[in-house]
Amino acid sequence: MRGVVMYGPGDVRVQEREAPQIVEPTDAVIRVEAACVCGSDLWPYRGIEELSWPAPMGHEYAGIVEEVGDAVQTVRPGQFVVGSFWATDNTCAICRAGYQSACVNRVPMGALGAQAELLRIPLADGTLIATPEVPPAHLVPSLLTASDVLGTGWFGAVAAEARPGKTVAVVGDGAVGLLAVLAAKQLGAERIIAMSRHESRQRLAREFGATDIVAERGDAGVAAIKELTDGLGAHSIVEAVGTQESMNQALHATRPGGHVGFVGVAHGVSLDGMDLFWSLAHVHGGPAPVRRFLPELLDLIWTRQIDPGKVFDLRLPLEQAPEGYRAMDEREAIKTLLTP
Amino acid sequence: MRGVVMYGPGDVRVQEREAPQIVEPTDAVIRVEAACVCGSDLWPYRGIEELSWPAPMGHEYAGIVEEVGDAVQTVRPGQFVVGSFWATDNTCAICRAGYQSACVNRVPMGALGAQAELLRIPLADGTLIATPEVPPAHLVPSLLTASDVLGTGWFGAVAAEARPGKTVAVVGDGAVGLLAVLAAKQLGAERIIAMSRHESRQRLAREFGATDIVAERGDAGVAAIKELTDGLGAHSIVEAVGTQESMNQALHATRPGGHVGFVGVAHGVSLDGMDLFWSLAHVHGGPAPVRRFLPELLDLIWTRQIDPGKVFDLRLPLEQAPEGYRAMDEREAIKTLLTP
Repeated sequence: MRGVVMYGPGDVRVQEREAPQIVEPTDAVIRVEAACVCGSDLWPYRGIEELSWPAPMGHEYAGIVEEVGDAVQTVRPGQFVVGSFWATDNTCAICRAGYQSACVNRVPMGALGAQAELLRIPLADGTLIATPEVPPAHLVPSLLTASDVLGTGWFGAVAAEARPGKTVAVVGDGAVGLLAVLAAKQLGAERIIAMSRHESRQRLAREFGATDIVAERGDAGVAAIKELTDGLGAHSIVEAVGTQESMNQALHATRPGGHVGFVGVAHGVSLDGMDLFWSLAHVHGGPAPVRRFLPELLDLIWTRQIDPGKVFDLRLPLEQAPEGYRAMDEREAIKTLLTP
Repeated sequence: MRGVVMYGPGDVRVQEREAPQIVEPTDAVIRVEAACVCGSDLWPYRGIEELSWPAPMGHEYAGIVEEVGDAVQTVRPGQFVVGSFWATDNTCAICRAGYQSACVNRVPMGALGAQAELLRIPLADGTLIATPEVPPAHLVPSLLTASDVLGTGWFGAVAAEARPGKTVAVVGDGAVGLLAVLAAKQLGAERIIAMSRHESRQRLAREFGATDIVAERGDAGVAAIKELTDGLGAHSIVEAVGTQESMNQALHATRPGGHVGFVGVAHGVSLDGMDLFWSLAHVHGGPAPVRRFLPELLDLIWTRQIDPGKVFDLRLPLEQAPEGYRAMDEREAIKTLLTP
């Protein structure tokens, strides 16, 4: 089968890979209908994160079940399924507490390479959710977002305690940040401030529910948020970048007692203890437990209440994956959808 | 009047200070019945924190109202009162959200010097609570703890979300840590692990409700907590020291999705972003909004449901304050009560 493999920074190739098979009785194998490039795929692409080269790529996926192992009970061949970017048992104490991304038996889907024609899903019962029926093609991009990017933005908004009466600011106008805006809107936030300098992204943020746009960054961005909030700062901040600057911006723009939800993979970031102490902020984040939100998110999409698929502004056949990486790296595209 | 003044690291003196008077119509002046030495007073004593020398000392106080300004409505001369270590209006948006320690009009009581015969309390209506009547002498130490050390331990336990069904671990066996144990017990925690190497402190921890003691520190301490919690870590950790080692210990001993409540003033501490990301812990702390808890804490003490005054294992007249600092610095005493 064909699949995307990264050979080193900037070196993405589409090549023949061995077709996956059922290994454990709890496995499923799916035919990938749509996969995509994640902001986190850009870290190794940019040489900031080391992988074991060559590395199969991709951890976001939606597709049709081809085959299931003997122990799989909740999905069957022919069903359309979406799963989290972590395969998880969904039964351990950590999963039951809603932190499936730290499941004691988790398997990172990135290691299996979802940017491919076929994909093995370990722990299929705890990982996959089937849609009520096979969806029309136009619904597939939105369903795909639930696998990671929507679930991650959603977790950011939940971790930031976005809810009615709250002012939520989102640092980062990538796909995760934009979908955190959508999540804050769904969660009932009163005011949603998107921090973005790019007109096309500002437009999408407004479409997703942003009530205000702040184009400034750093200290000027913090000052702008304070100006919009009686000098106090936002109740809730979603940090969806993962740099020192964005984390500082998030922490300093939160009012005392407020909540920072951070979902940007925190490369080279450190939080100063005194800064955190005096901020009196709550800080929570990490790899999103997408599986917690998956049933609800798929239902919102299925019933056309949200349309997160709009974040895909570049759609390419799998064979053109290198172009998809390049466009995201150069910020020409917000997010690339790949069709095997 | 007599009052404690620090002239530099290790140099604590009791001397004549100008008696405070009503300055603003919202002020009260109280006759201090009991004050005490705080762990945070030891930072400048040890030369780790710079003050503007000479510095009047003390921010924990309980006493009898002498005089009130024209605008004061809730307390009157002759009443016994306890207040937070921040004077606060208790009416601004931040106070109303329960974060009085970041009140937009806050005044640090430390600047006024509570280790003295008389003390001016700014914003008296928002700061002080009167007890139902003047308490018997034996109740005064416990009432005094509500001013900071109990309120701070309580905030740590609340920030760590100690509650029924939870395993709570407390890092730090100083007075704040010990009272965090008491708080976790009151909040209904199922299991309370006190981390302490000192027998007398272990004993008090057990008296306050600890079910387990862990004497190990650092990685060995983390391993011990994991061993007690099916390898997962505690649900809730209170960090009551404020060093890099104690913060790491807290973060690493928390299970994914768990809560770290940190109340140690974080000197030279930094949190690694990646570490925090992968921990999936909630982190919340800072200067305790004691005023939020004060009515409840005073009631628990008044009705003899808790006896936090036991943390005072050294009681001295104000004139012997230097000895009280020395004994705490050398960890001979857990906490020193000073009687003017």
